[in-house]
Amino acid sequence: MKHVLVTGANGFIGRAVLPLLAARGWRVSAVSRQPQDTDSALASWHTADLFDTDATAQLLGHLRPTHLLHLAWNTEHGRFWQAPDNLDWMSASLSLLRAFAENGGKRAVVSGTCAEYDWSHGFCREDVTPCAPRSLYGEAKLATHHLARHLLAGTDTQLAWARVFFPYGPGEAAGRLIPSVMRAMDAGEPVRCSHGQQYRDFLHVDDVAAAFAHLLDVADDGVFNIASGIPVQLRHLVLTLARLMHWTGTPDFGAIAVPADDPPLLVGDITRLRATGWQPTVTLEDGLIHTLADWRQPRQHHRSS
Amino acid sequence: MKHVLVTGANGFIGRAVLPLLAARGWRVSAVSRQPQDTDSALASWHTADLFDTDATAQLLGHLRPTHLLHLAWNTEHGRFWQAPDNLDWMSASLSLLRAFAENGGKRAVVSGTCAEYDWSHGFCREDVTPCAPRSLYGEAKLATHHLARHLLAGTDTQLAWARVFFPYGPGEAAGRLIPSVMRAMDAGEPVRCSHGQQYRDFLHVDDVAAAFAHLLDVADDGVFNIASGIPVQLRHLVLTLARLMHWTGTPDFGAIAVPADDPPLLVGDITRLRATGWQPTVTLEDGLIHTLADWRQPRQHHRSS
Repeated sequence: MKHVLVTGANGFIGRAVLPLLAARGWRVSAVSRQPQDTDSALASWHTADLFDTDATAQLLGHLRPTHLLHLAWNTEHGRFWQAPDNLDWMSASLSLLRAFAENGGKRAVVSGTCAEYDWSHGFCREDVTPCAPRSLYGEAKLATHHLARHLLAGTDTQLAWARVFFPYGPGEAAGRLIPSVMRAMDAGEPVRCSHGQQYRDFLHVDDVAAAFAHLLDVADDGVFNIASGIPVQLRHLVLTLARLMHWTGTPDFGAIAVPADDPPLLVGDITRLRATGWQPTVTLEDGLIHTLADWRQPRQHHRSS
Repeated sequence: MKHVLVTGANGFIGRAVLPLLAARGWRVSAVSRQPQDTDSALASWHTADLFDTDATAQLLGHLRPTHLLHLAWNTEHGRFWQAPDNLDWMSASLSLLRAFAENGGKRAVVSGTCAEYDWSHGFCREDVTPCAPRSLYGEAKLATHHLARHLLAGTDTQLAWARVFFPYGPGEAAGRLIPSVMRAMDAGEPVRCSHGQQYRDFLHVDDVAAAFAHLLDVADDGVFNIASGIPVQLRHLVLTLARLMHWTGTPDFGAIAVPADDPPLLVGDITRLRATGWQPTVTLEDGLIHTLADWRQPRQHHRSS
């Protein structure tokens, strides 16, 4: 039976992946550091600290999953770019992959990042655009990818490396662009933005999750952008939110300075992922309506990361 | 007095530049191969064949312009990409630049092309994106640029090299995308298109012309993209035309195959040109309305190139 071990299953993307895996007939094991995080019945939950190499090896020896979906990493908003524990996540990821391969794992799908690319190129294609991360986060992900290829060379374990662009949707960290703009508009506070001229690539978290679930079943090794392929100007995004929220103010474009090297365009080419049979299904408009509806529902808490 | 010699003054861009130069107080000389082409009173017209090195040298020695705006090249729709005379235009351009420098010319602005870039990168930035032309046209323009830099090194003659993206507007060659779609919609014929998913960078010819006129007055040497900086999907462009023309049919997207290496995105970064004080002023919507209005006016002829 197909059996996938999911790390980061309680994260922003992981929570959206679990129902898709269940629907596709996977036996799902999920690993979490703290037992109280195991808030989903869609998986068998296991408690382990991925930073503990022995514990990881033990878990993999016990479960012997055929597939691995590795999403866990430090993604704390605003801090993860330069957080020293990026290097710990690199080590932990490599230990995990090694234990997975040693226990007969057939295929691993690992979450990389668009921050691996040289952003001065802007339009990111897996086989064309050079990699030159600006952040420790990007460097650590890139190094993890390179080292993992070496680690798995000569084994029967496949590796698909997925470079995720800008996911958004229900459960996104409160400090990020869309939730913070929604909150300010909802509270009647000023909406302070950068100049907003930049183009970025936003993909609804359900499409991101579908891409990950899909990649588990694809035979293709290699690197895949997970993106929409659609350049959206931040100004347009903010004005769309204003329209959907019936907010009649004027966003203060330019209130927040951008770095001199802020890329004017950052978009992922998705030709390669499309060729495997996946395609995005949620338009930006529908995705924002969905995000807004979810955000307005009463709930226990909004996650901070 | 500022005195500019304009080549290609009867071309698509040249015709739009002449009134701007007049308005900016330039004394304008224009060169044309055939006297009957001299249909504008905005310049003093001179007849010369730029392929004739001696004639070019004589003309420059006679006029001694302070500035040169070199737009002339083979731009015959569909043929210019691989036409052998691209090499003749390279030689002619270099002879022209040499004669200009030898006669005390201060600043030349020359029309290059986005086809100099490696299109697999898609988002084209002057100092970042590698050049790797796919066409003889792009190769010849790129070589002209490199050779011109060598030729002018050690002289007092400045060179600004302008890489033009996708100009459109009144006077565009009939076979190109916008005029051909307008014509088919107007005639009630089927509108056959490629899949239309590609993003391209369209700039109204008046903005292109303004950029050239502006670059004559800028002190900055170097390479400048002349573009809008705005990715527009071809599908969107065609559907906008349909709306503006009140055409109620369904474009046949996918009827025309695209090459396997057709770039999904081709956009020019215009940070550098903006920094000199130029900016685009015509929105795509306004530009298409303007183009359509002009196209519907009765006229003597539509140009085929």
